[in-house]
Amino acid sequence: GVSREEVYEIVNRALQRYSEDRIGMVDYALESSGASVLNTRCSETYETKTALLSLFGVPLWYQSQSPRAILQPDSNPGNCWAFRGSQGYAVVRLSSRIRPTAVTLDHIPRSLSPKSTISSAPKDFIVYGLDEETQKEGVLLGNFTYKQDGDPIQTFHLKGENIPTYELVELRIQSNWGHPEYTCVYRFRVHGEAEM
Amino acid sequence: GVSREEVYEIVNRALQRYSEDRIGMVDYALESSGASVLNTRCSETYETKTALLSLFGVPLWYQSQSPRAILQPDSNPGNCWAFRGSQGYAVVRLSSRIRPTAVTLDHIPRSLSPKSTISSAPKDFIVYGLDEETQKEGVLLGNFTYKQDGDPIQTFHLKGENIPTYELVELRIQSNWGHPEYTCVYRFRVHGEAEM
Amino acid sequence: GVSREEVYEIVNRALQRYSEDRIGMVDYALESSGASVLNTRCSETYETKTALLSLFGVPLWYQSQSPRAILQPDSNPGNCWAFRGSQGYAVVRLSSRIRPTAVTLDHIPRSLSPKSTISSAPKDFIVYGLDEETQKEGVLLGNFTYKQDGDPIQTFHLKGENIPTYELVELRIQSNWGHPEYTCVYRFRVHGEAEM
Ligand SMILES: [K+]
Ligand SMILES: [K+]
Ligand SMILES: [K+]
Repeated sequence: GVSREEVYEIVNRALQRYSEDRIGMVDYALESSGASVLNTRCSETYETKTALLSLFGVPLWYQSQSPRAILQPDSNPGNCWAFRGSQGYAVVRLSSRIRPTAVTLDHIPRSLSPKSTISSAPKDFIVYGLDEETQKEGVLLGNFTYKQDGDPIQTFHLKGENIPTYELVELRIQSNWGHPEYTCVYRFRVHGEAEM
Repeated sequence: GVSREEVYEIVNRALQRYSEDRIGMVDYALESSGASVLNTRCSETYETKTALLSLFGVPLWYQSQSPRAILQPDSNPGNCWAFRGSQGYAVVRLSSRIRPTAVTLDHIPRSLSPKSTISSAPKDFIVYGLDEETQKEGVLLGNFTYKQDGDPIQTFHLKGENIPTYELVELRIQSNWGHPEYTCVYRFRVHGEAEM
Repeated sequence: GVSREEVYEIVNRALQRYSEDRIGMVDYALESSGASVLNTRCSETYETKTALLSLFGVPLWYQSQSPRAILQPDSNPGNCWAFRGSQGYAVVRLSSRIRPTAVTLDHIPRSLSPKSTISSAPKDFIVYGLDEETQKEGVLLGNFTYKQDGDPIQTFHLKGENIPTYELVELRIQSNWGHPEYTCVYRFRVHGEAEM
Protein backbone atom coordinates (compact mmCIF):
# COMPACT_ATOMS: atom_id res chain seq x y z
CA GLY A 1 0.00 0.00 0.00
CA VAL A 2 0.97 3.60 -0.58
CA SER A 3 1.21 6.08 2.29
CA ARG A 4 -0.70 9.35 2.46
CA GLU A 5 2.58 11.25 2.08
CA GLU A 6 3.42 9.38 -1.11
CA VAL A 7 -0.01 10.17 -2.56
CA TYR A 8 0.51 13.88 -1.83
CA GLU A 9 3.91 13.71 -3.50
CA ILE A 10 2.54 11.98 -6.62
CA VAL A 11 -0.33 14.47 -6.88
CA ASN A 12 1.93 17.48 -6.41
CA ARG A 13 4.43 16.31 -8.98
CA ALA A 14 1.65 15.62 -11.49
CA LEU A 15 0.16 19.09 -10.98
CA GLN A 16 3.57 20.72 -11.28
CA ARG A 17 4.14 18.98 -14.61
CA TYR A 18 0.62 19.95 -15.70
CA SER A 19 1.46 23.58 -14.96
CA GLU A 20 4.63 23.36 -17.04
CA ASP A 21 2.76 23.74 -20.33
CA ARG A 22 1.60 20.13 -19.73
CA ILE A 23 4.80 18.46 -20.92
CA GLY A 24 7.65 20.34 -19.22
CA MET A 25 9.59 21.02 -22.42
CA VAL A 26 10.66 24.43 -23.71
CA ASP A 27 8.66 25.39 -26.82
CA TYR A 28 10.84 27.35 -29.25
CA ALA A 29 7.83 27.89 -31.53
CA LEU A 30 5.83 29.82 -28.93
CA GLU A 31 4.65 33.19 -30.24
CA SER A 32 4.84 34.92 -26.86
CA SER A 33 8.51 33.96 -26.67
CA GLY A 34 9.24 35.52 -30.04
CA ALA A 35 8.47 32.87 -32.64
CA SER A 36 6.40 33.69 -35.73
CA VAL A 37 4.78 32.09 -38.76
CA LEU A 38 6.63 33.35 -41.80
CA ASN A 39 4.89 31.68 -44.62
CA THR A 40 2.17 29.22 -45.25
CA ARG A 41 3.21 28.69 -48.87
CA CYS A 42 0.08 28.06 -50.85
CA SER A 43 -2.11 26.73 -48.05
CA GLU A 44 -5.52 28.32 -48.16
CA THR A 45 -6.88 29.31 -44.78
CA TYR A 46 -10.33 27.83 -44.45
CA GLU A 47 -13.09 30.19 -43.44
CA THR A 48 -14.73 28.25 -40.66
CA LYS A 49 -17.60 29.97 -38.96
CA THR A 50 -15.54 30.49 -35.80
CA ALA A 51 -16.39 33.41 -33.62
CA LEU A 52 -19.10 34.90 -35.70
CA LEU A 53 -19.61 38.21 -34.00
CA SER A 54 -23.11 39.47 -34.21
CA LEU A 55 -25.19 41.85 -32.19
CA PHE A 56 -28.95 41.81 -32.22
CA GLY A 57 -28.94 39.42 -35.13
CA VAL A 58 -26.74 41.40 -37.45
CA PRO A 59 -23.52 39.55 -38.22
CA LEU A 60 -20.59 41.96 -37.84
CA TRP A 61 -17.75 39.84 -39.12
CA TYR A 62 -16.63 36.29 -39.52
CA GLN A 63 -13.31 35.82 -37.84
CA SER A 64 -11.17 33.05 -39.10
CA GLN A 65 -8.11 32.01 -37.19
CA SER A 66 -4.81 32.93 -38.75
CA PRO A 67 -1.90 30.48 -38.89
CA ARG A 68 -0.53 32.28 -35.80
CA ALA A 69 -3.02 30.19 -33.80
CA ILE A 70 -0.64 27.22 -34.03
CA LEU A 71 1.98 29.09 -32.00
CA GLN A 72 -0.48 30.10 -29.27
CA PRO A 73 -1.25 27.87 -26.29
CA ASP A 74 -5.01 28.54 -26.11
CA SER A 75 -6.46 25.34 -27.52
CA ASN A 76 -10.12 25.70 -26.75
CA PRO A 77 -12.26 24.23 -29.53
CA GLY A 78 -12.00 26.47 -32.60
CA ASN A 79 -8.69 28.12 -31.68
CA CYS A 80 -6.83 26.39 -34.47
CA TRP A 81 -5.53 27.16 -37.91
CA ALA A 82 -7.93 25.55 -40.36
CA PHE A 83 -6.79 25.15 -43.94
CA ARG A 84 -8.74 23.86 -46.93
CA GLY A 85 -8.16 20.23 -47.81
CA SER A 86 -5.75 17.92 -46.06
CA GLN A 87 -2.37 19.35 -47.05
CA GLY A 88 -0.96 22.45 -45.43
CA TYR A 89 2.43 24.06 -44.89
CA ALA A 90 3.76 26.50 -42.35
CA VAL A 91 7.27 27.88 -41.98
CA VAL A 92 8.02 28.95 -38.42
CA ARG A 93 10.81 31.26 -37.31
CA LEU A 94 11.75 29.93 -33.87
CA SER A 95 12.37 32.19 -30.88
CA SER A 96 16.05 31.25 -31.12
CA ARG A 97 18.40 29.07 -33.13
CA ILE A 98 18.35 25.50 -31.79
CA ARG A 99 19.37 21.95 -32.53
CA PRO A 100 15.86 20.42 -32.90
CA THR A 101 15.25 17.22 -30.98
CA ALA A 102 11.46 16.84 -30.99
CA VAL A 103 8.17 18.41 -32.06
CA THR A 104 4.70 18.29 -30.50
CA LEU A 105 1.25 18.51 -32.10
CA ASP A 106 -1.84 19.37 -30.02
CA HIS A 107 -5.45 18.74 -30.92
CA ILE A 108 -8.63 18.89 -28.84
CA PRO A 109 -9.64 15.75 -26.95
CA ARG A 110 -12.38 13.66 -28.52
CA SER A 111 -14.68 14.36 -25.58
CA LEU A 112 -14.82 18.05 -26.60
CA SER A 113 -15.59 17.33 -30.23
CA PRO A 114 -19.15 16.89 -31.53
CA LYS A 115 -19.81 13.19 -32.23
CA SER A 116 -16.48 12.42 -30.52
CA THR A 117 -14.63 12.43 -33.80
CA ILE A 118 -11.48 14.34 -34.60
CA SER A 119 -11.61 13.81 -38.33
CA SER A 120 -10.13 17.27 -38.96
CA ALA A 121 -6.99 16.43 -36.98
CA PRO A 122 -3.68 16.09 -38.86
CA LYS A 123 -2.53 12.53 -39.62
CA ASP A 124 0.76 12.19 -41.52
CA PHE A 125 3.19 15.10 -41.39
CA ILE A 126 6.81 15.94 -42.15
CA VAL A 127 9.17 18.34 -40.43
CA TYR A 128 12.00 20.11 -42.26
CA GLY A 129 14.81 22.39 -41.16
CA LEU A 130 15.38 25.41 -43.40
CA ASP A 131 18.44 27.60 -43.76
CA GLU A 132 16.61 30.47 -45.33
CA GLU A 133 13.01 31.32 -45.90
CA THR A 134 13.01 31.17 -49.66
CA GLN A 135 14.57 27.70 -49.68
CA LYS A 136 12.32 25.38 -51.70
CA GLU A 137 13.28 22.11 -50.09
CA GLY A 138 14.59 21.92 -46.52
CA VAL A 139 16.45 19.16 -44.73
CA LEU A 140 14.18 16.32 -43.63
CA LEU A 141 14.04 16.12 -39.85
CA GLY A 142 11.31 13.53 -39.52
CA ASN A 143 8.22 11.87 -40.82
CA PHE A 144 5.45 11.21 -38.31
CA THR A 145 1.83 10.23 -37.75
CA TYR A 146 -0.46 11.96 -35.24
CA LYS A 147 -2.47 9.12 -33.71
CA GLN A 148 -6.24 9.44 -33.77
CA ASP A 149 -6.62 7.42 -30.57
CA GLY A 150 -3.64 8.80 -28.69
CA ASP A 151 -3.31 11.58 -26.17
CA PRO A 152 -4.44 15.00 -27.46
CA ILE A 153 -0.84 16.22 -26.99
CA GLN A 154 1.64 14.02 -28.87
CA THR A 155 5.42 14.49 -28.90
CA PHE A 156 7.57 13.06 -31.71
CA HIS A 157 11.32 12.61 -31.30
CA LEU A 158 13.63 13.35 -34.21
CA LYS A 159 16.12 10.67 -35.05
CA GLY A 160 19.63 11.10 -36.27
CA GLU A 161 22.90 12.36 -34.89
CA ASN A 162 24.73 15.55 -35.72
CA ILE A 163 21.60 17.48 -36.54
CA PRO A 164 22.73 21.04 -37.29
CA THR A 165 21.07 24.08 -35.73
CA TYR A 166 18.12 25.83 -37.35
CA GLU A 167 16.15 28.99 -36.86
CA LEU A 168 13.48 28.03 -39.41
CA VAL A 169 11.37 24.89 -39.26
CA GLU A 170 8.70 23.83 -41.73
CA LEU A 171 5.64 21.77 -40.84
CA ARG A 172 4.02 19.93 -43.74
CA ILE A 173 0.71 18.25 -43.06
CA GLN A 174 0.21 15.46 -45.61
CA SER A 175 -3.19 14.07 -44.65
CA ASN A 176 -5.96 14.29 -42.06
CA TRP A 177 -8.23 11.81 -40.28
CA GLY A 178 -10.97 11.96 -42.86
CA HIS A 179 -12.58 15.39 -42.85
CA PRO A 180 -13.52 16.08 -46.48
CA GLU A 181 -13.21 19.86 -46.31
CA TYR A 182 -10.52 21.09 -43.95
CA THR A 183 -7.77 20.27 -41.48
CA CYS A 184 -7.27 21.98 -38.12
CA VAL A 185 -3.90 22.44 -36.46
CA TYR A 186 -4.28 23.53 -32.85
CA ARG A 187 -0.65 23.85 -31.84
CA PHE A 188 2.81 23.03 -33.15
CA ARG A 189 5.71 23.07 -30.72
CA VAL A 190 9.41 22.68 -31.45
CA HIS A 191 11.85 21.43 -28.83
CA GLY A 192 15.63 21.26 -28.84
CA GLU A 193 18.91 22.45 -27.46
CA ALA A 194 19.71 26.13 -27.51
CA GLU A 195 23.04 27.14 -29.01
CA MET A 196 25.79 27.89 -26.50
CA GLY B 1 -4.59 -0.28 0.40
CA VAL B 2 -4.13 1.20 -3.05
CA SER B 3 -1.04 0.46 -5.14
CA ARG B 4 1.26 3.12 -6.55
CA GLU B 5 0.12 2.21 -10.07
CA GLU B 6 -3.51 2.77 -9.13
CA VAL B 7 -2.67 6.17 -7.66
CA TYR B 8 -0.93 7.17 -10.90
CA GLU B 9 -3.95 6.02 -12.87
CA ILE B 10 -6.41 7.96 -10.70
CA VAL B 11 -4.26 11.10 -10.90
CA ASN B 12 -3.83 10.84 -14.65
CA ARG B 13 -7.50 10.32 -15.29
CA ALA B 14 -8.38 13.28 -13.05
CA LEU B 15 -5.91 15.55 -14.88
CA GLN B 16 -7.19 14.39 -18.25
CA ARG B 17 -10.75 15.28 -17.28
CA TYR B 18 -9.51 18.60 -15.87
CA SER B 19 -7.93 19.37 -19.25
CA GLU B 20 -11.18 18.56 -21.05
CA ASP B 21 -12.71 21.94 -20.22
CA ARG B 22 -13.06 20.58 -16.67
CA ILE B 23 -16.20 18.52 -17.31
CA GLY B 24 -15.53 16.61 -20.53
CA MET B 25 -18.71 17.70 -22.30
CA VAL B 26 -18.91 19.48 -25.66
CA ASP B 27 -20.01 23.10 -25.21
CA TYR B 28 -22.21 24.19 -28.12
CA ALA B 29 -22.34 27.73 -26.71
CA LEU B 30 -18.58 28.29 -26.98
CA GLU B 31 -17.75 31.45 -28.92
CA SER B 32 -14.52 30.08 -30.37
CA SER B 33 -16.53 27.21 -31.86
CA GLY B 34 -18.90 29.60 -33.59
CA ALA B 35 -21.61 30.42 -31.04
CA SER B 36 -22.71 34.01 -30.43
CA VAL B 37 -24.93 36.11 -28.20
CA LEU B 38 -27.73 37.45 -30.37
CA ASN B 39 -29.73 39.48 -28.02
CA THR B 40 -29.87 40.38 -24.39
CA ARG B 41 -33.43 41.74 -24.64
CA CYS B 42 -33.71 44.61 -22.22
CA SER B 43 -30.95 43.58 -19.81
CA GLU B 44 -28.78 46.55 -18.95
CA THR B 45 -25.08 45.76 -18.87
CA TYR B 46 -23.72 47.00 -15.56
CA GLU B 47 -20.67 49.23 -15.76
CA THR B 48 -18.44 47.61 -13.19
CA LYS B 49 -15.03 49.16 -12.80
CA THR B 50 -13.36 46.19 -14.41
CA ALA B 51 -10.10 46.74 -16.19
CA LEU B 52 -9.85 50.45 -15.75
CA LEU B 53 -7.00 51.24 -18.06
CA SER B 54 -4.97 54.15 -16.91
CA LEU B 55 -1.45 55.32 -17.53
CA PHE B 56 0.33 57.63 -15.15
CA GLY B 57 -2.88 58.35 -13.32
CA VAL B 58 -5.01 59.35 -16.30
CA PRO B 59 -7.90 56.96 -16.80
CA LEU B 60 -8.11 56.01 -20.45
CA TRP B 61 -11.30 54.05 -20.51
CA TYR B 62 -13.52 51.90 -18.41
CA GLN B 63 -13.98 48.57 -20.02
CA SER B 64 -17.10 46.70 -19.15
CA GLN B 65 -17.49 43.11 -20.19
CA SER B 66 -19.96 42.46 -22.95
CA PRO B 67 -22.43 39.56 -22.83
CA ARG B 68 -19.95 37.68 -25.06
CA ALA B 69 -18.00 36.98 -21.86
CA ILE B 70 -20.47 34.21 -20.99
CA LEU B 71 -19.42 32.23 -24.08
CA GLN B 72 -15.70 32.56 -23.31
CA PRO B 73 -13.83 30.11 -21.07
CA ASP B 74 -11.61 32.66 -19.27
CA SER B 75 -13.26 32.91 -15.88
CA ASN B 76 -10.73 34.89 -13.91
CA PRO B 77 -12.45 37.23 -11.44
CA GLY B 78 -14.12 40.04 -13.39
CA ASN B 79 -14.35 38.20 -16.72
CA CYS B 80 -18.12 37.94 -16.52
CA TRP B 81 -21.18 39.62 -17.97
CA ALA B 82 -22.55 41.85 -15.23
CA PHE B 83 -26.08 43.19 -15.64
CA ARG B 84 -27.96 45.62 -13.44
CA GLY B 85 -30.34 44.07 -10.93
CA SER B 86 -31.03 40.38 -10.61
CA GLN B 87 -32.90 39.58 -13.81
CA GLY B 88 -31.12 39.19 -17.12
CA TYR B 89 -31.72 37.53 -20.49
CA ALA B 90 -29.42 36.30 -23.19
CA VAL B 91 -30.28 34.55 -26.44
CA VAL B 92 -27.43 32.40 -27.71
CA ARG B 93 -27.01 31.07 -31.24
CA LEU B 94 -25.30 27.73 -30.76
CA SER B 95 -22.39 26.57 -32.89
CA SER B 96 -24.71 23.99 -34.42
CA ARG B 97 -28.27 22.72 -34.16
CA ILE B 98 -28.56 20.21 -31.32
CA ARG B 99 -31.01 18.34 -29.16
CA PRO B 100 -30.19 20.01 -25.80
CA THR B 101 -29.63 17.66 -22.87
CA ALA B 102 -27.95 19.84 -20.23
CA VAL B 103 -26.57 23.30 -19.45
CA THR B 104 -23.72 24.43 -17.21
CA LEU B 105 -23.23 27.67 -15.27
CA ASP B 106 -19.76 28.71 -14.03
CA HIS B 107 -18.96 31.23 -11.32
CA ILE B 108 -15.72 31.99 -9.48
CA PRO B 109 -14.97 29.95 -6.36
CA ARG B 110 -15.68 31.61 -3.02
CA SER B 111 -11.98 31.56 -2.15
CA LEU B 112 -11.29 34.04 -4.97
CA SER B 113 -14.05 36.42 -3.97
CA PRO B 114 -13.50 39.23 -1.42
CA LYS B 115 -15.16 38.30 1.89
CA SER B 116 -15.74 34.80 0.46
CA THR B 117 -19.22 35.68 -0.71
CA ILE B 118 -20.62 35.13 -4.16
CA SER B 119 -23.72 37.28 -3.69
CA SER B 120 -23.58 38.40 -7.33
CA ALA B 121 -23.87 34.82 -8.59
CA PRO B 122 -27.08 33.76 -10.38
CA LYS B 123 -29.60 31.80 -8.29
CA ASP B 124 -32.82 30.79 -10.08
CA PHE B 125 -32.78 30.59 -13.84
CA ILE B 126 -34.80 29.21 -16.75
CA VAL B 127 -33.65 27.84 -20.09
CA TYR B 128 -35.77 28.06 -23.24
CA GLY B 129 -35.40 26.72 -26.75
CA LEU B 130 -36.27 29.20 -29.50
CA ASP B 131 -37.20 28.58 -33.10
CA GLU B 132 -36.44 32.07 -34.26
CA GLU B 133 -34.80 35.04 -32.72
CA THR B 134 -37.82 37.31 -32.63
CA GLN B 135 -39.93 34.70 -30.86
CA LYS B 136 -41.32 36.22 -27.68
CA GLU B 137 -41.80 33.05 -25.69
CA GLY B 138 -39.70 29.96 -26.30
CA VAL B 139 -40.25 26.35 -25.26
CA LEU B 140 -39.38 25.74 -21.61
CA LEU B 141 -36.42 23.37 -21.35
CA GLY B 142 -35.84 23.62 -17.61
CA ASN B 143 -36.03 25.56 -14.40
CA PHE B 144 -32.95 25.39 -12.16
CA THR B 145 -31.14 26.84 -9.15
CA TYR B 146 -27.41 27.54 -9.09
CA LYS B 147 -26.32 26.47 -5.60
CA GLN B 148 -24.40 29.01 -3.52
CA ASP B 149 -22.48 26.30 -1.67
CA GLY B 150 -21.92 23.95 -4.58
CA ASP B 151 -19.04 23.51 -6.94
CA PRO B 152 -18.18 26.65 -8.97
CA ILE B 153 -19.08 24.71 -12.14
CA GLN B 154 -22.62 23.27 -11.94
CA THR B 155 -24.29 21.17 -14.64
CA PHE B 156 -28.09 20.89 -14.87
CA HIS B 157 -29.75 18.10 -16.82
CA LEU B 158 -32.86 18.82 -18.87
CA LYS B 159 -35.79 16.51 -18.31
CA GLY B 160 -38.27 15.30 -20.80
CA GLU B 161 -38.29 13.04 -23.80
CA ASN B 162 -38.56 13.93 -27.44
CA ILE B 163 -36.95 17.32 -27.05
CA PRO B 164 -36.71 18.79 -30.55
CA THR B 165 -33.52 20.29 -31.91
CA TYR B 166 -32.68 23.97 -31.49
CA GLU B 167 -30.13 26.40 -32.75
CA LEU B 168 -31.21 29.17 -30.37
CA VAL B 169 -31.28 28.88 -26.59
CA GLU B 170 -32.33 31.56 -24.13
CA LEU B 171 -30.95 31.92 -20.62
CA ARG B 172 -33.16 33.84 -18.18
CA ILE B 173 -31.66 34.66 -14.83
CA GLN B 174 -34.51 35.22 -12.33
CA SER B 175 -32.64 36.07 -9.14
CA ASN B 176 -29.19 36.29 -7.59
CA TRP B 177 -27.63 35.43 -4.22
CA GLY B 178 -28.26 38.79 -2.65
CA HIS B 179 -26.16 41.41 -4.38
CA PRO B 180 -28.28 44.60 -4.36
CA GLU B 181 -26.82 46.10 -7.53
CA TYR B 182 -25.82 43.57 -10.12
CA THR B 183 -25.54 39.92 -11.17
CA CYS B 184 -22.48 38.35 -12.81
CA VAL B 185 -22.63 35.45 -15.24
CA TYR B 186 -19.18 33.97 -15.84
CA ARG B 187 -20.06 31.25 -18.31
CA PHE B 188 -23.07 29.53 -19.80
CA ARG B 189 -22.54 26.23 -21.61
CA VAL B 190 -25.06 24.20 -23.57
CA HIS B 191 -24.66 20.46 -24.08
CA GLY B 192 -26.55 18.03 -26.26
CA GLU B 193 -26.62 15.73 -29.21
CA ALA B 194 -25.63 17.04 -32.61
CA GLU B 195 -28.02 16.37 -35.47
CA MET B 196 -27.14 13.48 -37.71
CA GLY C 1 -2.18 2.22 3.47
CA VAL C 2 -4.54 4.76 1.95
CA SER C 3 -7.97 3.79 0.63
CA ARG C 4 -9.17 4.47 -2.88
CA GLU C 5 -11.71 6.95 -1.51
CA GLU C 6 -8.98 8.90 0.28
CA VAL C 7 -6.93 9.09 -2.91
CA TYR C 8 -9.94 10.48 -4.80
CA GLU C 9 -10.45 13.03 -2.06
CA ILE C 10 -6.80 14.15 -2.07
CA VAL C 11 -6.80 14.42 -5.87
CA ASN C 12 -10.06 16.35 -5.97
CA ARG C 13 -8.97 18.80 -3.29
CA ALA C 14 -5.64 19.37 -5.07
CA LEU C 15 -7.40 20.04 -8.38
CA GLN C 16 -9.88 22.37 -6.72
CA ARG C 17 -7.04 24.40 -5.22
CA TYR C 18 -5.26 24.35 -8.59
CA SER C 19 -8.38 25.82 -10.19
CA GLU C 20 -8.51 28.59 -7.59
CA ASP C 21 -5.80 30.64 -9.31
CA ARG C 22 -3.38 27.98 -7.98
CA ILE C 23 -3.15 29.37 -4.43
CA GLY C 24 -6.75 30.03 -3.35
CA MET C 25 -6.15 33.64 -2.28
CA VAL C 26 -8.00 36.70 -3.58
CA ASP C 27 -5.71 38.83 -5.77
CA TYR C 28 -6.50 42.53 -5.30
CA ALA C 29 -3.97 43.41 -8.00
CA LEU C 30 -5.80 41.51 -10.75
CA GLU C 31 -6.50 43.69 -13.78
CA SER C 32 -9.74 41.94 -14.68
CA SER C 33 -11.06 42.75 -11.20
CA GLY C 34 -10.31 46.44 -11.64
CA ALA C 35 -6.68 46.94 -10.61
CA SER C 36 -4.28 48.95 -12.76
CA VAL C 37 -0.64 49.95 -13.04
CA LEU C 38 -0.47 53.68 -12.40
CA ASN C 39 3.15 54.42 -12.75
CA THR C 40 6.41 52.69 -13.35
CA ARG C 41 8.47 55.71 -12.23
CA CYS C 42 11.62 55.76 -14.29
CA SER C 43 11.76 52.06 -15.17
CA GLU C 44 12.50 51.58 -18.83
CA THR C 45 10.48 48.87 -20.49
CA TYR C 46 12.89 46.56 -22.27
CA GLU C 47 12.13 45.85 -25.91
CA THR C 48 12.43 42.10 -25.97
CA LYS C 49 11.70 40.46 -29.27
CA THR C 50 8.43 39.05 -27.98
CA ALA C 51 5.68 38.38 -30.44
CA LEU C 52 7.35 39.69 -33.51
CA LEU C 53 4.48 39.73 -35.93
CA SER C 54 5.51 39.16 -39.47
CA LEU C 55 3.76 37.92 -42.55
CA PHE C 56 5.60 36.47 -45.49
CA GLY C 57 8.89 37.63 -44.06
CA VAL C 58 8.03 41.28 -43.52
CA PRO C 59 8.15 42.19 -39.86
CA LEU C 60 5.05 44.19 -38.99
CA TRP C 61 5.81 45.24 -35.46
CA TYR C 62 7.70 44.26 -32.37
CA GLN C 63 5.33 44.02 -29.49
CA SER C 64 6.78 44.52 -26.09
CA GLN C 65 4.73 43.70 -23.07
CA SER C 66 3.52 46.65 -21.05
CA PRO C 67 3.70 46.71 -17.26
CA ARG C 68 0.01 45.67 -17.30
CA ALA C 69 1.30 42.13 -17.94
CA ILE C 70 2.11 41.80 -14.22
CA LEU C 71 -1.58 42.11 -13.33
CA GLN C 72 -2.68 39.48 -15.88
CA PRO C 73 -2.77 35.76 -15.08
CA ASP C 74 -1.46 34.49 -18.43
CA SER C 75 2.10 33.52 -17.58
CA ASN C 76 3.18 31.68 -20.69
CA PRO C 77 6.86 32.34 -21.46
CA GLY C 78 7.24 35.93 -22.66
CA ASN C 79 4.03 37.26 -21.11
CA CYS C 80 5.92 39.35 -18.57
CA TRP C 81 6.92 42.95 -18.03
CA ALA C 82 10.60 43.17 -18.94
CA PHE C 83 12.50 46.26 -17.82
CA ARG C 84 16.09 47.23 -18.57
CA GLY C 85 18.62 46.41 -15.86
CA SER C 86 17.76 44.86 -12.53
CA GLN C 87 15.85 47.62 -10.77
CA GLY C 88 12.25 48.39 -11.58
CA TYR C 89 9.26 50.03 -9.94
CA ALA C 90 5.54 49.73 -10.40
CA VAL C 91 2.74 51.44 -8.51
CA VAL C 92 -0.47 49.44 -8.57
CA ARG C 93 -3.96 50.73 -7.81
CA LEU C 94 -5.71 47.76 -6.22
CA SER C 95 -9.25 46.73 -7.12
CA SER C 96 -10.31 47.88 -3.64
CA ARG C 97 -8.87 49.33 -0.46
CA ILE C 98 -7.45 46.55 1.72
CA ARG C 99 -5.29 45.84 4.73
CA PRO C 100 -2.42 44.04 2.92
CA THR C 101 -1.30 40.75 4.45
CA ALA C 102 0.80 39.10 1.72
CA VAL C 103 2.08 39.43 -1.84
CA THR C 104 2.88 36.81 -4.48
CA LEU C 105 5.41 36.83 -7.33
CA ASP C 106 5.10 34.42 -10.27
CA HIS C 107 7.81 33.43 -12.72
CA ILE C 108 7.97 30.64 -15.30
CA PRO C 109 9.26 27.25 -14.13
CA ARG C 110 12.86 26.41 -14.97
CA SER C 111 11.73 23.56 -17.19
CA LEU C 112 10.14 26.08 -19.61
CA SER C 113 13.20 28.29 -19.79
CA PRO C 114 16.00 27.71 -22.33
CA LYS C 115 19.04 26.23 -20.53
CA SER C 116 16.84 25.82 -17.44
CA THR C 117 17.97 29.13 -16.00
CA ILE C 118 15.72 31.88 -14.72
CA SER C 119 18.43 34.53 -14.52
CA SER C 120 15.96 37.25 -15.52
CA ALA C 121 13.72 36.52 -12.51
CA PRO C 122 13.47 39.11 -9.72
CA LYS C 123 15.59 38.44 -6.61
CA ASP C 124 15.35 41.06 -3.84
CA PHE C 125 12.29 43.28 -3.75
CA ILE C 126 10.49 45.68 -1.44
CA VAL C 127 6.77 46.38 -1.08
CA TYR C 128 5.42 49.77 0.02
CA GLY C 129 1.98 51.09 0.82
CA LEU C 130 1.19 54.52 -0.63
CA ASP C 131 -1.42 57.03 0.41
CA GLU C 132 -1.35 58.94 -2.83
CA GLU C 133 0.22 58.39 -6.17
CA THR C 134 2.65 61.29 -6.09
CA GLN C 135 4.05 60.25 -2.71
CA LYS C 136 7.83 59.87 -3.04
CA GLU C 137 8.39 57.40 -0.25
CA GLY C 138 5.68 55.02 0.90
CA VAL C 139 5.35 52.99 4.09
CA LEU C 140 7.56 49.89 4.09
CA LEU C 141 5.41 46.76 4.14
CA GLY C 142 8.14 44.20 3.61
CA ASN C 143 11.49 43.24 2.20
CA PHE C 144 11.70 39.85 0.47
CA THR C 145 13.75 37.56 -1.75
CA TYR C 146 12.24 35.52 -4.60
CA LYS C 147 14.03 32.18 -4.40
CA GLN C 148 15.71 30.91 -7.56
CA ASP C 149 15.17 27.26 -6.59
CA GLY C 150 11.72 27.62 -5.08
CA ASP C 151 8.28 27.08 -6.55
CA PRO C 152 7.50 29.29 -9.58
CA ILE C 153 4.70 30.90 -7.52
CA GLN C 154 6.02 32.29 -4.20
CA THR C 155 3.90 34.00 -1.54
CA PHE C 156 5.47 36.37 1.01
CA HIS C 157 3.66 37.28 4.22
CA LEU C 158 3.86 40.82 5.55
CA LYS C 159 4.82 41.18 9.17
CA GLY C 160 3.63 43.71 11.66
CA GLU C 161 0.40 44.48 13.42
CA ASN C 162 -1.95 47.34 12.88
CA ILE C 163 -1.15 47.72 9.21
CA PRO C 164 -3.45 50.45 7.88
CA THR C 165 -5.47 50.05 4.71
CA TYR C 166 -4.13 51.01 1.30
CA GLU C 167 -5.44 51.38 -2.21
CA LEU C 168 -1.96 51.89 -3.72
CA VAL C 169 0.92 49.45 -3.41
CA GLU C 170 4.40 49.86 -4.86
CA LEU C 171 6.62 46.99 -5.98
CA ARG C 172 10.34 47.77 -6.12
CA ILE C 173 12.57 45.14 -7.66
CA GLN C 174 16.11 45.62 -6.33
CA SER C 175 18.04 42.89 -8.13
CA ASN C 176 17.67 39.89 -10.40
CA TRP C 177 19.20 36.42 -10.63
CA GLY C 178 22.05 37.46 -12.90
CA HIS C 179 20.69 38.48 -16.29
CA PRO C 180 22.96 41.31 -17.48
CA GLU C 181 20.36 43.10 -19.59
CA TYR C 182 16.84 42.85 -18.23
CA THR C 183 14.48 41.59 -15.56
CA CYS C 184 11.11 39.95 -16.19
CA VAL C 185 8.16 40.16 -13.83
CA TYR C 186 5.44 37.69 -14.79
CA ARG C 187 2.87 38.46 -12.14
CA PHE C 188 2.51 40.43 -8.92
CA ARG C 189 -0.46 39.66 -6.67
CA VAL C 190 -1.55 41.48 -3.51
CA HIS C 191 -3.59 39.75 -0.82
CA GLY C 192 -5.31 41.15 2.25
CA GLU C 193 -8.48 41.90 4.08
CA ALA C 194 -11.13 43.99 2.42
CA GLU C 195 -12.47 46.95 4.39
CA MET C 196 -15.80 46.43 6.12
K1 LIG D 1 -3.96 27.37 -30.43
K1 LIG E 1 -15.97 34.14 -19.02
K1 LIG F 1 1.44 37.74 -16.92
